[in-house]
Amino acid sequence: MCPQTDFDKPFGLSDNSQVQVELPGDRGYPIHIGAGLIDRAAEMIRDKLGERRCLVVTDTTVQRFYGQRVQEQLTQAGLVRDDILVMPTGEQTKNFSYLSFVLDNLFMKNIDRKTVLVALGGGVIGDLTGFVAAIALRGLDFVQIPTTLLSQVDSAVGGKTGINSPRGKNLVGAFHQPRLVIIDVDTLKTLPAREVKAGYAEIVKYGLLGNASFFRWLETNGPQITAGKAAKQEIQVQAIRTSCAMKAHYVAQDERDNAQRALLNLGHTFAHAFETLSNYDGSLLHGEAVAIGLVKAFQLSHRLGFCPEADVARVQAHIKAMGLPTSIQGRGWPLEALISTMFNDKKVMDGELTFILVKGIGEAFIESKIPTEHVRAVLEMP
Amino acid sequence: MCPQTDFDKPFGLSDNSQVQVELPGDRGYPIHIGAGLIDRAAEMIRDKLGERRCLVVTDTTVQRFYGQRVQEQLTQAGLVRDDILVMPTGEQTKNFSYLSFVLDNLFMKNIDRKTVLVALGGGVIGDLTGFVAAIALRGLDFVQIPTTLLSQVDSAVGGKTGINSPRGKNLVGAFHQPRLVIIDVDTLKTLPAREVKAGYAEIVKYGLLGNASFFRWLETNGPQITAGKAAKQEIQVQAIRTSCAMKAHYVAQDERDNAQRALLNLGHTFAHAFETLSNYDGSLLHGEAVAIGLVKAFQLSHRLGFCPEADVARVQAHIKAMGLPTSIQGRGWPLEALISTMFNDKKVMDGELTFILVKGIGEAFIESKIPTEHVRAVLEMP
Repeated sequence: MCPQTDFDKPFGLSDNSQVQVELPGDRGYPIHIGAGLIDRAAEMIRDKLGERRCLVVTDTTVQRFYGQRVQEQLTQAGLVRDDILVMPTGEQTKNFSYLSFVLDNLFMKNIDRKTVLVALGGGVIGDLTGFVAAIALRGLDFVQIPTTLLSQVDSAVGGKTGINSPRGKNLVGAFHQPRLVIIDVDTLKTLPAREVKAGYAEIVKYGLLGNASFFRWLETNGPQITAGKAAKQEIQVQAIRTSCAMKAHYVAQDERDNAQRALLNLGHTFAHAFETLSNYDGSLLHGEAVAIGLVKAFQLSHRLGFCPEADVARVQAHIKAMGLPTSIQGRGWPLEALISTMFNDKKVMDGELTFILVKGIGEAFIESKIPTEHVRAVLEMP
Repeated sequence: MCPQTDFDKPFGLSDNSQVQVELPGDRGYPIHIGAGLIDRAAEMIRDKLGERRCLVVTDTTVQRFYGQRVQEQLTQAGLVRDDILVMPTGEQTKNFSYLSFVLDNLFMKNIDRKTVLVALGGGVIGDLTGFVAAIALRGLDFVQIPTTLLSQVDSAVGGKTGINSPRGKNLVGAFHQPRLVIIDVDTLKTLPAREVKAGYAEIVKYGLLGNASFFRWLETNGPQITAGKAAKQEIQVQAIRTSCAMKAHYVAQDERDNAQRALLNLGHTFAHAFETLSNYDGSLLHGEAVAIGLVKAFQLSHRLGFCPEADVARVQAHIKAMGLPTSIQGRGWPLEALISTMFNDKKVMDGELTFILVKGIGEAFIESKIPTEHVRAVLEMP
């Protein structure tokens, strides 16, 4: 169950650590992780994909910090013309209107099937750009340069792309793998502290779902990851590399998310419902919703007799210590609205709630037919 | 080059002839061809996919003739609730607004990942529904029940789905194979004569691109295919079966259209430009554009020294005899507008025009770097 877990083997930044996502055909791809990589992006893209026209999609915030740097390199490498599309920052950009806007702009720029899209930004930009790449001319190559901790350890890897519908998150999308992922931990220096913490919740998730020793390591090293400019980059690289290696493992086993890949959704059925109820108004980041969801998944597992209470307490303590929320108290979300939102989750099959539960830290499994009253009960717990 | 060509082996309607599309994984699927199959659709779907909720997408015209019949069967078979979405008839339905409309409706009906979409109609309904199936919840199963000759021999098979963009046809889409195709030649009895003829152009295409003896057979039997209620159904089934078998062959070789599958585009670079210039106003059906495109491809091949003049004349004579257009004279389309539209075709690579040319009837090949002046010259030919 537990993939390459040599996370505790020390390695230096000079390693520019690489993880390979193993997939059939020509769909496998490398994930480069290190410091200063954003300034070598054009070189890496050319090495991997050859001399191809590149078109960058980013958002206003990331554009300010990195847009010009990336575009200048690409231009110098002869890979880009005047091609950058800058979207508004925020979740609302992952909708039908911006999808149509980006597509129209690509066609106006006379892209062809060899054009490479470069997603430079967080999960919103990566998901939107990846989906555009999936459906423009029935499929273009794309590169992920995730600039948030959340997207570095989760959404930039694995090929899930898509947009939101008025009826729910990520309801419209495609499986479309990037050809290359470039993760530069320098970008975490410009990321707001709250967003770094939120991204950290997804790192904890990997420990909790399948790697108890990684969780133990995080209990010690977590604070060094989220310390902003004072963070230890080699610790960040180790945490991101372990997370990406675990994600790559589950994606390789089950690219289309029909079986084992579902374990990566630990905490997420809860989290998606919390996000829906928050109306994506900025009061609850995805990673914060996941943090609460992880605690709820452990509480539910304990309530159903699968998980020792001590593990629930340990998870709750670590998440709290890292400055993340652990319950929905004070949010004012009606319980029944949360429950009915969960039943609209796209993972619901034949009207039955399926959850990822745990037998303890590092031992997740899939369980269907969870009685609603238990879900209701843990939602009310502190 | 030439797949199963036992089209001249007589076989009765009772055979309910079946063609298998061979693809890796679980993506292969059967195409059932015969008379009266629409009344067995629910049974065929249940046999192939099990007891699953089905949701039918159709258009107002097809709804009038077959919508209720299909829905009643599905309901009796326990496969459907109140689920039918009826779109306006016509090419304009293949756009972003209707895509979003269908998706929103599916989510309002609380579909899940096991829901099966049933595309009941012509190419517009098949392409739109297939694309919805590709991207709703990142992929649903779907079934094609094509009701026009054009969709029966072409668009319903092979998994190319998509919609149009204001900048061109089929610019947005996905490769998503149906799980089952059900072709009922009875539906051709209610199809307007002009549409039957237009669909016939795609049948001729198969002979011209890779099956000279099929073309010879069509020179004799073509009129029996397009004769409306007087048509011989066994001849129709033979022609459709041969066309589907040839399409299945090229799709199996090259599902993603990176190489040999391009031969299926014989005449289509021309045809797409003609359709764009006609603004899809109904004055030129896709099959009519293909008919002209086939003649232009032969004329271009002759002009470039690849194809004997006698073959050009024979193709032109047969297409004309079948009541289809063979030139653009009198259309009033500016030559330069046609040329620049061709350069915007999604098959253009690195700014060079690639065409499917022929060495003669039944011998198509791919040729790039076609000088524009030759294209211009054949566009002006009668």
